[in-house]
Amino acid sequence: MIEFNIINKDNKARRGTLKLQRGIIETPQFMPVGTQATVKALKPEDLSSAGASIILVNAYHLYIRPGLDLIEKFKGVHGFMNWKAPILSDSGGFQVFSLSSLRKLSEEGVTFSTPVDGGKKHFISPEKAIAIQETLDTDISMCFDECTPYPSTYEETKKSMELSLRWAERCKKAHIHKTQSLWGILQGGMFEDLRSTSAKAMNVLDFEGYAIGGLGVGEDKSATYKIINHTTPLMEEKKPRYLMGFGMPEDIIEGVNAGIDLFDCVIPTRNARHGKFYTSNGIIRIKNNKHRDETLPIDEKCSCYCCKNYSRSYIAHLLQCEEVLGILLGSIHNTHYYLNLMKNIRTAIENNLFLKFREEFYKSQILK
Amino acid sequence: MIEFNIINKDNKARRGTLKLQRGIIETPQFMPVGTQATVKALKPEDLSSAGASIILVNAYHLYIRPGLDLIEKFKGVHGFMNWKAPILSDSGGFQVFSLSSLRKLSEEGVTFSTPVDGGKKHFISPEKAIAIQETLDTDISMCFDECTPYPSTYEETKKSMELSLRWAERCKKAHIHKTQSLWGILQGGMFEDLRSTSAKAMNVLDFEGYAIGGLGVGEDKSATYKIINHTTPLMEEKKPRYLMGFGMPEDIIEGVNAGIDLFDCVIPTRNARHGKFYTSNGIIRIKNNKHRDETLPIDEKCSCYCCKNYSRSYIAHLLQCEEVLGILLGSIHNTHYYLNLMKNIRTAIENNLFLKFREEFYKSQILK
Repeated sequence: MIEFNIINKDNKARRGTLKLQRGIIETPQFMPVGTQATVKALKPEDLSSAGASIILVNAYHLYIRPGLDLIEKFKGVHGFMNWKAPILSDSGGFQVFSLSSLRKLSEEGVTFSTPVDGGKKHFISPEKAIAIQETLDTDISMCFDECTPYPSTYEETKKSMELSLRWAERCKKAHIHKTQSLWGILQGGMFEDLRSTSAKAMNVLDFEGYAIGGLGVGEDKSATYKIINHTTPLMEEKKPRYLMGFGMPEDIIEGVNAGIDLFDCVIPTRNARHGKFYTSNGIIRIKNNKHRDETLPIDEKCSCYCCKNYSRSYIAHLLQCEEVLGILLGSIHNTHYYLNLMKNIRTAIENNLFLKFREEFYKSQILK
Repeated sequence: MIEFNIINKDNKARRGTLKLQRGIIETPQFMPVGTQATVKALKPEDLSSAGASIILVNAYHLYIRPGLDLIEKFKGVHGFMNWKAPILSDSGGFQVFSLSSLRKLSEEGVTFSTPVDGGKKHFISPEKAIAIQETLDTDISMCFDECTPYPSTYEETKKSMELSLRWAERCKKAHIHKTQSLWGILQGGMFEDLRSTSAKAMNVLDFEGYAIGGLGVGEDKSATYKIINHTTPLMEEKKPRYLMGFGMPEDIIEGVNAGIDLFDCVIPTRNARHGKFYTSNGIIRIKNNKHRDETLPIDEKCSCYCCKNYSRSYIAHLLQCEEVLGILLGSIHNTHYYLNLMKNIRTAIENNLFLKFREEFYKSQILK
């Protein structure tokens, strides 16, 4: 059970609040990704300080490792990982399908193995994916779907999207714990009419929220944006809309502009590990020689723990020496950047200034 | 300039306070090792919470990377790494001599190269080692010495120890910044009479503190303990005594028992990275299957951030998934363990109960 309220609309952009089992989150919002029940390198306190109010975990990964028996002992993933605020679990459809050579798909579900646990055989059906997420006791669970490969023909995409629809119906039937909110995932690849069919059928199934899946799988950004802009208006206005696994800062701005409320992406922590940091003027690559002697922080305008206490040269030194603290400080900064971007987006929408904000964002990106 | 006061003596164990440029530290004390201007994986706040009051950095490593020009811009290593409490710098003699095939030793100093900076030629003399540490502006600097290889003959060890003595004299002459305290390092390998000669000559040179160097280089522990017990009584009673780079918990207890005041060792953070954790009952190896489903913390009696919030199974999961957070939490725990051990040692000495404490420590170590 959720309560979703739209406080203000600024063109298509929406400013809302989403009440979940464990707290209220402000939308548009970004969810740091904690695939393995840890947002890479960050303690829960680091996440909260950076502004995180909801994170994402991956049901498939946690089902394989450490396994559900253990997580049950903690009464769910919150207790296991010591995160008290809301969590959304991705069902893991995307991850199962990325094991392409090791999986076998049928109407019933997917049989697969993974080297991670020594190649044991597993079977996940829509019903099982729901049960797994109920054991995780996350605040939002996602339907189990087939992530259509890219590229795919129209016929392949149609067949795959229709299977995901049938699975969504089975997920809904299997869902028992109503304090957890179950959301549907729209598919349809790069074909607008298939996206339309998926969106309309999903609305009939009446989930509490909807996600756009199957994007960021290798297509051009223009194709991604086209599908986002086509699909979003077809998603029920009064329900939260989530763009899955996709987001450079500009993608988030385009998503919000289309009417998306929720985002997740591994980019902030992954880029931090590679020394790519977001600033109010664009990206800096800390391994570039010009930062080697720089006593200024990553971003002088940033109020994060990293920028308040450390210089670019110190972070560059740490990453050059392969020191864990470099990863940690960089992850704090990039996560803070994303969550602060969301805050600024929300303020802009509240003041009906989102289009101006968007324009100024692009103007500010002088570092590439 | 330092002030060292011995508050209580319990047999040979000493309970003291050591006033340095940036603060007072309680002795016996342990210094977490921050070779590259970072105690691996830990933020300064993590160190303080774990009870750290002084840390160690390595002058040789910082001279090579990031270089002194940069550290000068921060007016020393404190500003560079955001650590405000005292720091001891090791001169790096040990590290230079571990580059055995790349170095050339003369009366004047050592010429060497290292792959870390692409094989540039460097020259470090006693004078230069002092100047480097003055630039770092650490609270305690160490003489530049030759760490005698193990094994070495009597003649080789004598020659090496005498060179270190001549270098110590040159270090003392070169030392200008008297707010920084310069300490001498005793050598003499595994030969008691050479250790005696070194100790007596060092006392004449009148440093503010003394360290025992050249131990833990491959010899049996019985040999190490023999040299510690032989040498410590020869070191000036009223000055602080530091056992360099050596210390499992039992080694620290034996060192304190011999009259040592200060310790450093990479073991707590290194063992954390390998999943070896210290507890009040000895060591646990978290990768052992029996911890896989354990909801208890690493040590139920421990009050560190890790034990207050996380289970063994969660830490085991993180390390199995090679997640940075596992290294971080484990490093917090092991560092806290060491610093808490020192606290308990100090309390025992204050109450003239150190020998009883030592006995109980050995009895408690049922996990190996």
